[in-house]
Amino acid sequence: MSIRVGLLGFGRTGSLVAKEIVNDAELSLEWVCRKTIPTNLNYASHSIGFDDNFAPFVSFENMSKDFLKKYPVDIVIDFSSSAAAASYDILAKAGIRIITAISKYAPEDFIRVQKASEITAVLASPNITLGINWLMIASKVLKHIIPHADIEVVEEHFRDKKEISGTALKLATQLDLEPNQHVNSIRVGGIVGRHEVIFGLPYQTIRLTHESVNRAAFGTGAAFAGKWLYKKTAGLYTMEQVMHEKFLKKITELNFY
Amino acid sequence: MSIRVGLLGFGRTGSLVAKEIVNDAELSLEWVCRKTIPTNLNYASHSIGFDDNFAPFVSFENMSKDFLKKYPVDIVIDFSSSAAAASYDILAKAGIRIITAISKYAPEDFIRVQKASEITAVLASPNITLGINWLMIASKVLKHIIPHADIEVVEEHFRDKKEISGTALKLATQLDLEPNQHVNSIRVGGIVGRHEVIFGLPYQTIRLTHESVNRAAFGTGAAFAGKWLYKKTAGLYTMEQVMHEKFLKKITELNFY
Amino acid sequence: MSIRVGLLGFGRTGSLVAKEIVNDAELSLEWVCRKTIPTNLNYASHSIGFDDNFAPFVSFENMSKDFLKKYPVDIVIDFSSSAAAASYDILAKAGIRIITAISKYAPEDFIRVQKASEITAVLASPNITLGINWLMIASKVLKHIIPHADIEVVEEHFRDKKEISGTALKLATQLDLEPNQHVNSIRVGGIVGRHEVIFGLPYQTIRLTHESVNRAAFGTGAAFAGKWLYKKTAGLYTMEQVMHEKFLKKITELNFY
Amino acid sequence: MSIRVGLLGFGRTGSLVAKEIVNDAELSLEWVCRKTIPTNLNYASHSIGFDDNFAPFVSFENMSKDFLKKYPVDIVIDFSSSAAAASYDILAKAGIRIITAISKYAPEDFIRVQKASEITAVLASPNITLGINWLMIASKVLKHIIPHADIEVVEEHFRDKKEISGTALKLATQLDLEPNQHVNSIRVGGIVGRHEVIFGLPYQTIRLTHESVNRAAFGTGAAFAGKWLYKKTAGLYTMEQVMHEKFLKKITELNFY
Repeated sequence: MSIRVGLLGFGRTGSLVAKEIVNDAELSLEWVCRKTIPTNLNYASHSIGFDDNFAPFVSFENMSKDFLKKYPVDIVIDFSSSAAAASYDILAKAGIRIITAISKYAPEDFIRVQKASEITAVLASPNITLGINWLMIASKVLKHIIPHADIEVVEEHFRDKKEISGTALKLATQLDLEPNQHVNSIRVGGIVGRHEVIFGLPYQTIRLTHESVNRAAFGTGAAFAGKWLYKKTAGLYTMEQVMHEKFLKKITELNFY
Repeated sequence: MSIRVGLLGFGRTGSLVAKEIVNDAELSLEWVCRKTIPTNLNYASHSIGFDDNFAPFVSFENMSKDFLKKYPVDIVIDFSSSAAAASYDILAKAGIRIITAISKYAPEDFIRVQKASEITAVLASPNITLGINWLMIASKVLKHIIPHADIEVVEEHFRDKKEISGTALKLATQLDLEPNQHVNSIRVGGIVGRHEVIFGLPYQTIRLTHESVNRAAFGTGAAFAGKWLYKKTAGLYTMEQVMHEKFLKKITELNFY
Repeated sequence: MSIRVGLLGFGRTGSLVAKEIVNDAELSLEWVCRKTIPTNLNYASHSIGFDDNFAPFVSFENMSKDFLKKYPVDIVIDFSSSAAAASYDILAKAGIRIITAISKYAPEDFIRVQKASEITAVLASPNITLGINWLMIASKVLKHIIPHADIEVVEEHFRDKKEISGTALKLATQLDLEPNQHVNSIRVGGIVGRHEVIFGLPYQTIRLTHESVNRAAFGTGAAFAGKWLYKKTAGLYTMEQVMHEKFLKKITELNFY
Repeated sequence: MSIRVGLLGFGRTGSLVAKEIVNDAELSLEWVCRKTIPTNLNYASHSIGFDDNFAPFVSFENMSKDFLKKYPVDIVIDFSSSAAAASYDILAKAGIRIITAISKYAPEDFIRVQKASEITAVLASPNITLGINWLMIASKVLKHIIPHADIEVVEEHFRDKKEISGTALKLATQLDLEPNQHVNSIRVGGIVGRHEVIFGLPYQTIRLTHESVNRAAFGTGAAFAGKWLYKKTAGLYTMEQVMHEKFLKKITELNFY
């Protein structure tokens, strides 16, 4: 039996995430909630290349206790926008777990995220990819094993990305680096996203690099997080926590010699 | 009080290691044992750029119970050759711990290593650098967190390095990769040494890279291993084990969220 | 006045190329020729996100002297398949220049390419991107300036790409390298395409790397080639030739000191 | 018959350069001029690992017309310091060509460089490596072929290198980049030197990278420059010029299709 998933948001990333959920044998996509529904389109399935009718669209206005009774899900994944947090109370009270990848919450919306987390399990992480979160944990451990290493972060993105990458800032925080001094931002052409952490020792250099091929990576990460969250009780979690738990489990179990 | 160290071998790598030991505040270099001692040279200190007289040379023939009583050490670090294992019995019986970075032991010599490890703590690792061993642990953990990733190892070395790098082979073993298929060897110019492990997922790529600047990295690693081994009881250890222990400790202690 | 372009092929790459042609101020997309035309779709413009009606579809069967009179073009760009060469005679006789990016021609089709090039200007290059062709010229020059350098090619592509990359083979040919020994193929995850040429000297290493972000790069290259070919007389050209000419022009004109 | 070379300066880089000159079959090292000569050391040959007596030391004070008559050379290579320019007049008048790799000249010393260049052929380049100068030419050509590309320079050096690398600044000048905005400096551990120029286009990225293995690369470059300068008449030249000439020659001669 697979985990039933509802998806909030169906923009460029949302539709890629939908596809990843459908392709994951352990998950099933039950419905997709979006702001405006095209008049002649009833099913998300068609938009992502399937002929069958499944994953009906629902508008945010029609998201209600009754809807959730008729179309029950175990988990909701949110790739829409800050405002969608208005629906979290209904979701939480229906016993649904929530995964949100919204990059920036308005303060009043983040209060809603926190309130929901008192009732159900909520995971909130703007960068939900496996790779970046693994890199976060692995880098931090390395820094504490060799505290005398010099560390720099290099992040590369497409020309029009204005601000310093949020992921690079988070890496800097985890590594106790002053971003203004130690995060180097490269903006050229159409690079999807590349993050590199460089550890310099007198006689050796270690580089950890994460390259994004496309945004569907968020879908894989959300699916991974979904399976993890499915077994959790109420509380506010992050993707770093998922990765930390996996890391600890593997490093304890595995035999290295 | 610092840990007293004796060094076996004073070739190209040995002398760099000697320097690292001297520069480490927690270690003191007591003597250096080498095959032939230049007639007008009594102290290793001079060869590595110090004016003071310390770290006297001793030949392998004069390595004895009496010598060790007169020049006591806590740890011996071996960067000489397989044959030096002949002296391990004397060292072990004097209660000295042994770190050996010999790349290939003759079978009869390895038996001596094992015998010594029944009496004292012995750490044997051909690639004793911090970076490579961290990379070994981190890669293996990553592989087990995302088992569906494709993995390739690329190793780059100077033109004249004949065989596939021993470190790359070890990486392959740890990652369950068939070396003939998944280790790519590049031989060009004067590259000191570069190892890269590539993890490919459908929408993202992770690269872990270790670049050697120079062979003194072995000295840093040996010093690191020395402090770790100092507290250990009899047994045969590896550098992966040192790194695994550090990794486990940090991942348990650190707060990631 | 812009150069009028007809496009053969409207697959995954073809439709990206169509978009690039439309977005190029010096080019105008007049029509798109494809095997089967969806019943309810008359204009390529709709498929690539425009509301206006332009770039009508035409089937290969209807490609004729009359059609070309009614819908005249200056250049045809071919991203379809080997068989499309059957139409080259009609195109050539109508005075249209041809750019083809077909990777592998059946022998009888390549004869058609050659025959057409006796009547009109034809440019044939499987990898028509600017970057790769620049890299080809630049690497070859470097090799001849420092003939004692060791050279290796590394190519990385997505897991399912079976054969060694055609571009890597061409690089090897230009650099006089035996592909079996000096081209290293990495197949992991979803890497779109990465080619690296490594030049190793005893004390320095030079790396030239080309990374594909997406296949629309073929469109930019085709547009670039189109403007170049527009002024050429009958003959068979390659993208290397375009790049060589540009290279020679710039290196002659520019002031470096 | 080989080109006779005199060397000014015998510091860390100077002695590596001496070795390169000796190892080059087309050059012969005649003497080495340095500030203070160790009392018991008469020949540079011994300091660089040869048993034979050759390449005698001479002090700057004893550098004179008479000395040059007794120990004639064709070319002088200068890796000492700005002040050595005081001897250029004597060298120039003796018909000797001069190669100088001094990074920063005091204004009065640079006037001496210029004066000497009116009498003899003088080549002045702080970074005289083949790789960097090739990269300079190749990058500038690429920039002018694809003027719409975004360009960034990344330079990585050891922790203690204070200022932005002079080579990176020169790259920026050649590429019309404002250094404060487009040169990214990484300072970590013991990286010898790494320069990368990134060209970003919407659908592809090109990277040109130069990695220094050790400072002997300056020797190879100086030897290369020496053979080039040997045939030149009076004038002030740069390494970019050497490389530009070679580039132009090869791109004209070579057949790419």
